Amino acid sequence: MIDKEFVGIAAGICTAVSLVPQFLKTIKEKRVEGVSSFVFVVLFFGNSLWVWYGVMLNEWPIIVTNAFSVIMDITMFILKMKYRNKS
Amino acid sequence: MIDKEFVGIAAGICTAVSLVPQFLKTIKEKRVEGVSSFVFVVLFFGNSLWVWYGVMLNEWPIIVTNAFSVIMDITMFILKMKYRNKS
Repeated sequence: MIDKEFVGIAAGICTAVSLVPQFLKTIKEKRVEGVSSFVFVVLFFGNSLWVWYGVMLNEWPIIVTNAFSVIMDITMFILKMKYRNKS
Repeated sequence: MIDKEFVGIAAGICTAVSLVPQFLKTIKEKRVEGVSSFVFVVLFFGNSLWVWYGVMLNEWPIIVTNAFSVIMDITMFILKMKYRNKS
């Protein structure tokens, strides 16, 4: 029987890692492609609610993964605003 | 006391809705911007693991949201392959 924490951690690593290439591409090209600032706001609310949900379930893989996503959402939103005039 | 199902559903709607603009933009412009096909493969594994995790916890907001994400990952990967020569 595979432990649920193990599955949660593996899931969290995959979905967190998937955010990194877009972030690196943004830093390198100094522009945020393909995604509107509105999407980052919706994601910010969504991931924040997932953190709350994780706290309610007391499941730390949900909390840690979505807290990382919240930080990325805020960072990408700031970069989107910063590079706005260059896009 | 707010029910955890309510928070999970609200979280799931936000993160699912955030995928729609990128999808519509892709359909409209017939090209997949900013994200590599590798990212969709990683997301496919990540979201599939989240579905498994949701099944283990018996939490259907996790299952439904990530099942939707898996479908979107596959769709975007197919569109990425389809529009490859046009990018």
